[in-house]
Amino acid sequence: MLPKVGTYKFNVATFEEDYKGQLSWRMLGKRLLGAADKHASERNFSKMVIDDIEYLWVLSRLTVEIDSYPKMHEDYFITTWAQRYYSFFTDRCFEICNDKGDIIGKATSVWAMINSLTRKPAKMADLFGETFDKYVDAERLFSMVRSPRINVNTLETTAIRIPHYSNLDRNGHVHSIDYIEMVLDLFSKEFHAQHDVKRFEIAYNMETLENEPLSFYMEPAFGKELTYNCIIRKNVDNPNTEGEIVCHTMVEFR
Amino acid sequence: MLPKVGTYKFNVATFEEDYKGQLSWRMLGKRLLGAADKHASERNFSKMVIDDIEYLWVLSRLTVEIDSYPKMHEDYFITTWAQRYYSFFTDRCFEICNDKGDIIGKATSVWAMINSLTRKPAKMADLFGETFDKYVDAERLFSMVRSPRINVNTLETTAIRIPHYSNLDRNGHVHSIDYIEMVLDLFSKEFHAQHDVKRFEIAYNMETLENEPLSFYMEPAFGKELTYNCIIRKNVDNPNTEGEIVCHTMVEFR
Repeated sequence: MLPKVGTYKFNVATFEEDYKGQLSWRMLGKRLLGAADKHASERNFSKMVIDDIEYLWVLSRLTVEIDSYPKMHEDYFITTWAQRYYSFFTDRCFEICNDKGDIIGKATSVWAMINSLTRKPAKMADLFGETFDKYVDAERLFSMVRSPRINVNTLETTAIRIPHYSNLDRNGHVHSIDYIEMVLDLFSKEFHAQHDVKRFEIAYNMETLENEPLSFYMEPAFGKELTYNCIIRKNVDNPNTEGEIVCHTMVEFR
Repeated sequence: MLPKVGTYKFNVATFEEDYKGQLSWRMLGKRLLGAADKHASERNFSKMVIDDIEYLWVLSRLTVEIDSYPKMHEDYFITTWAQRYYSFFTDRCFEICNDKGDIIGKATSVWAMINSLTRKPAKMADLFGETFDKYVDAERLFSMVRSPRINVNTLETTAIRIPHYSNLDRNGHVHSIDYIEMVLDLFSKEFHAQHDVKRFEIAYNMETLENEPLSFYMEPAFGKELTYNCIIRKNVDNPNTEGEIVCHTMVEFR
């Protein structure tokens, strides 16, 4: 049996860096999800087939805190494990280390498993039971502050973005990480030059397809410095609704 | 002395694939330029310093032909070398191999070296002379059809895109490869599902900054099936001009 915890090595290859010469959030996000995928695949729980029906992991929530970023050409390591499961959800944790072995960031995520036909989540205990239990590491020390529900009051659109082909994942939906990039793109080069992202939190509510306009509603978080709440909606032109919420996000800079 | 030719191994890591499950053009483009950068760095010609002035490589033209794409989790190899230099330019070639050693693609590129203060190109012979000569491999067999100048007659805008923070390279300019992605994003998911890019050609004319709107003018290439010419302009709202040309591109599908 493989250890409960998996560690994967990455490198900030040329052009995986941002304007500041450090690992871009696009790559960081994709590497976190890539490590999760590898960890689950190696342990045979990247998907489940029960009665000929495929069950697939879907990311429901992701919170990432970074103290310092790996720079161009530097190695970094992502350690990940499943922490617990309950009702429809599994918590997965991450630690990010630099090439000296110092922890430079951590992340926590919540996943559901959906029936690939009905797209509805299934009870974790029904899917896994004992086969999954042996890989769950509830003892490993890990703590991250949990944020309250992210709310935004403004009715004014900060920006509108149209998703294109290059934003799509293999299911034809906008990639989870692309929403993060779009929120960070609400800030200018000058702002990014002066501030690093300290924490990013995103809760996913609904998928988006190609050409469905995304409306961003952003405002400073009350009583917190350099912190912004942003809700992404689609179909906001429907006169009967304020649109459907795609995701809630919160970004804190330092 | 290192061999004239360098070969670098890559892998289509999770989420480096597109909707179709094959290496995305964003990653392919960045890996080609990454291989070029590594090849030049290892041989000490990734930049030059003469009389305290830095000279930097700037990509002027890139043509890529792909017969078949590496799929998710597959390894692939990029071989690159400098083929010749003349006046202000150096030609660099690429071969792309799959994990069985078959050539699945090739590319050719034209680079200039600019004075980092004046942003003007310098004569190659003045910069390198004999130090660079030993790495030039003019004998290695390589051929790619050269296209005539790319022209577009339409005055109608196909699309407008606003570059954001995430599009910027370390110089604060839109990354060369992002223009390719933006042109491919003019085509729908359905179109991409039916057609692979066979050849992409791009000639760079001018840099773009954050928030400078890019206008795309695309039309089918005369007498060629599944081939489109596209010119990207900026500042098209200037009443005295039709805007400045940022780049000429041509994409051929199969």
